[in-house]
Amino acid sequence: MIIDIINKKRLGLELSYQELDYFFNGYLNGDVADYQMSSLLMAICINGMSDEEIFALTKIFIDSGDTLDLSFIPGNKVDKHSTGGIGDKTTLVIAPIVASLGVSVVKMSGRGLGYTGGTIDKLESIPGFRIDLDDSEIIKQVSDIGVVVTGQTKDLVPMDKVIYALRDVTGTVSSIPLIASSIMSKKIAGGADKILIDIKVGSGALLDNIRDAKKLEELMIKIGKVYNREVRCIISDMNTPLGMNVGNGLEVLEAISVLKGECHNQGFVDLCVLLATNMVSMGLDISMDEAEKLVLDSIKSGKAYNKFLDLVKYQRGNIDKIIISKNTLEVKAKSNGVVEAIDALEVGKLSLDLGAGKVKKEDKIDYGVGIVLNKTVSDKVKKGDVLYTIYYSKKIPKLDNYKIFTIK
Amino acid sequence: MIIDIINKKRLGLELSYQELDYFFNGYLNGDVADYQMSSLLMAICINGMSDEEIFALTKIFIDSGDTLDLSFIPGNKVDKHSTGGIGDKTTLVIAPIVASLGVSVVKMSGRGLGYTGGTIDKLESIPGFRIDLDDSEIIKQVSDIGVVVTGQTKDLVPMDKVIYALRDVTGTVSSIPLIASSIMSKKIAGGADKILIDIKVGSGALLDNIRDAKKLEELMIKIGKVYNREVRCIISDMNTPLGMNVGNGLEVLEAISVLKGECHNQGFVDLCVLLATNMVSMGLDISMDEAEKLVLDSIKSGKAYNKFLDLVKYQRGNIDKIIISKNTLEVKAKSNGVVEAIDALEVGKLSLDLGAGKVKKEDKIDYGVGIVLNKTVSDKVKKGDVLYTIYYSKKIPKLDNYKIFTIK
Repeated sequence: MIIDIINKKRLGLELSYQELDYFFNGYLNGDVADYQMSSLLMAICINGMSDEEIFALTKIFIDSGDTLDLSFIPGNKVDKHSTGGIGDKTTLVIAPIVASLGVSVVKMSGRGLGYTGGTIDKLESIPGFRIDLDDSEIIKQVSDIGVVVTGQTKDLVPMDKVIYALRDVTGTVSSIPLIASSIMSKKIAGGADKILIDIKVGSGALLDNIRDAKKLEELMIKIGKVYNREVRCIISDMNTPLGMNVGNGLEVLEAISVLKGECHNQGFVDLCVLLATNMVSMGLDISMDEAEKLVLDSIKSGKAYNKFLDLVKYQRGNIDKIIISKNTLEVKAKSNGVVEAIDALEVGKLSLDLGAGKVKKEDKIDYGVGIVLNKTVSDKVKKGDVLYTIYYSKKIPKLDNYKIFTIK
Repeated sequence: MIIDIINKKRLGLELSYQELDYFFNGYLNGDVADYQMSSLLMAICINGMSDEEIFALTKIFIDSGDTLDLSFIPGNKVDKHSTGGIGDKTTLVIAPIVASLGVSVVKMSGRGLGYTGGTIDKLESIPGFRIDLDDSEIIKQVSDIGVVVTGQTKDLVPMDKVIYALRDVTGTVSSIPLIASSIMSKKIAGGADKILIDIKVGSGALLDNIRDAKKLEELMIKIGKVYNREVRCIISDMNTPLGMNVGNGLEVLEAISVLKGECHNQGFVDLCVLLATNMVSMGLDISMDEAEKLVLDSIKSGKAYNKFLDLVKYQRGNIDKIIISKNTLEVKAKSNGVVEAIDALEVGKLSLDLGAGKVKKEDKIDYGVGIVLNKTVSDKVKKGDVLYTIYYSKKIPKLDNYKIFTIK
C-alpha cells in the first residue's frame, strides 16, 4: 500500500484523499518511514499535485491538530503571512497599525531557520518579551488590546512541523503545492477569517520567479475559497533586502522608525502601508482608498506606535533595552559610482555568519548583531562613503566573501 | 552540499562524478541519511540520468567493493543475467550447456525477493547444494569443471546491496539508469569478459513495455563499451510464465528435462537455446549458426546434462533428493474453449501465497511447493481437463483470487 502510493505519484497519477490520509497520518504514527515520506515528497515536488490533492492535503494538515476558535471576538480577524526574506520585519509594523484601527490581529509567527531570525526571534531581542502564550492567554490578550504576536502553539498543525523538518533536509522545500498547504493549513487552523499573504520573489526568497509566485497565489486563493476565507496576495521583490536594517534587534529599531513616521527607506514604508491597507480593507470591509487613509493617519497620529508599545508591554517586553551590539565597523566604497544592486542573499549570508540566524535548531542567535545599509539602490556613491555598517559581537567574517554592493 | 545535490537533480540538472561519489559514498559511511538518499533516488527515477552520470554511478558502484579477477583462466569468461520473471530457470539450463562446450561460466546469482525464489533459492531445493562459495573456491571450481553457480560474494558491489534494499521500500525500483548501473556493476565486478542480458518484458517482469527494454539494452551496451566488455541483450516476453513449472524444486525438474531433451514446452526450450547460443557465440568467437549447432548437439549428446550433474556433485548437491511436495491438487476447466492467455503475474501471486517466494528477508521459502501448468497458450481445452496442478504443503489459498487462465 505504501509503495503503491509512492509509485502512483512517481508516475504522475493523482492520489485520493484516502491515500494521502493513509500516508501522511501513517508518517505521524510511525507506519511510514522517513525515507518513504521523503521519496513521496520528492515525487510531489517534481510531478506536482492536482487542486483536489492540495485541498485534501490541507485538510489532513489542519485535522492533525487543534484549531483556534476566535469567533466570539466581534468583527473580522485578519492574519498575515510572509513567505520570508532578508530583513522582513513587516509584521512588527503592520500588526500594531491594523490593531490600532479596530481590526483584531492574532499573529502566530515562526522562528527562523536560515539567514536571519524569524519574527519571534526578532521580538526576543526585546528583553522579557513573552512569545510562548497559550490559547487562553492569546484569547484574553486579543480581547483586551486587539493584537497578539506569539509563537505557534504546540498543537496547531503538528503535521506541518514534522513534514517541514523533513523537507528542510531532503531538498523538497521548493514545491508550490506543499508550500500552499503548509501556509494555508496554519492560517486556517489559527482562526483567521481573512488572510493576507506577502509572497516574496528574488535571490533572498523561497521563490525566485514571478511565475511560481502567481501559481502560489492562485492556489492559496483557491484553498481559501474551500474554507470560505478571503485570501489576498501581494507579490513583492526580494532581490534587495527589505529596509536598511538586517539582524534581530536592528530590525526592531527599523520597525519602530516606520511606526513613528521616521523611516527614510520609502520602499519599505510603502510595502508596510500596502500590507496594512489590505488588512484594514479586509478587516473593516472598506475600499483600499479608505483603508489607506486610515493607515497613514494611524502612523501620523501616533496611534500605531502606541499600539506597538501596548503590545510590548502586555507581553512583558522592555522597550528601553532592545539588544544592539556596541561593536560596529563601517565598510566604505572603494570607488565612485551609482549603487546598481544590493544582493539580499549576500546580506543574508553575512548576517548568518555574524550570528543573527541559525543553521541548526540548536544554534543560538546573537540578537544584537547585524547589518545596517547606509546606501540604497540608485544612490550616488563617492569613494570613502560608508556603504554599510556591521554590528558584531565576536569576530568579523572575511568581507571579501560577500558581494553585497554592485556599484557602476 | 547534500541538499544542493538533491536540489540539482530535482531540477533535472546533471550531477558530476564528484557529486555522485560524495553522495553515494556518503550514504555508505553514514553522512547521508536514508531519507536523503531516497529523495535523490526518486528525483533520479523521475528526471533520469545522462550517460555520463550513469557511467559515473556504475564506476562508484564497482569501486565500492572487490572485483573478481578471472584473467588467469584461458578464453572468454561469459556471464548472463536475467532481469527476472515468473518461472525463469534458464540459468540452470544454459550454464551447463555453455560450460560443456568449453566456455567458462562463473555465475553469481541472487535470492528472490518477490513471487518466486531466485536461482540460488532454486538450487537450494537440491539438498546439500552449496551456494556460499568464497573467491578461492570459485576459482578452483571454474578451473576444474568450467562452471560455478553460487551466491554473490559479500564484497562484490556492497553499495548495490544497500541501495537496492532502500529502492525496494521507497518506490524507486523502476528507473532504467539505476537498473542498468546495478546490473552492469555486478557483472563487471564479477570478472566476465562478455555479458548476455535477458531483458524480460511483461506483466510478471520489472519492465512492462518494449520501449523501456530497448532503452535499458542501449544503456547496458554503452556501459559495456566503457569497460571494454561485449554486451548482448535478448528482449523476451514475460506476460506468460516461462516454461510449465513455477516453484523452486519444480523448476529444477523442468531445467533437467530441457537438458535431457525431454521438455515439451518449445517456447522455453527455444529461449534456452537462444541464450546459450549467444553465450557460446561470444565465448568461442564464432557465428550464431555455428554456436547453435554446438548447443543443440550438447543437449542431444548428453554432454550438457552430464555437466549439470558435475556442477551439482562439485557443489555437494544430492540430485536424487530434489524437494517436491507430495500434496497435489488438480485445477480443471469449467468450460470448453481455447487458452487465450496465462497471466504470469497471477501465477506469481499464487506461487508466493503457496510459499515458493518471500515478501520479507526473514521469510522462509518452501522449496517443494509450486504450480505446474498442464495447458499452454493456444491449447484447446475441454470442460474437465486439468489446467494446472498445485503442489502445496500446508493450506491452499482461495483459488478464485487468481485469474491465471483466460479461456475463450
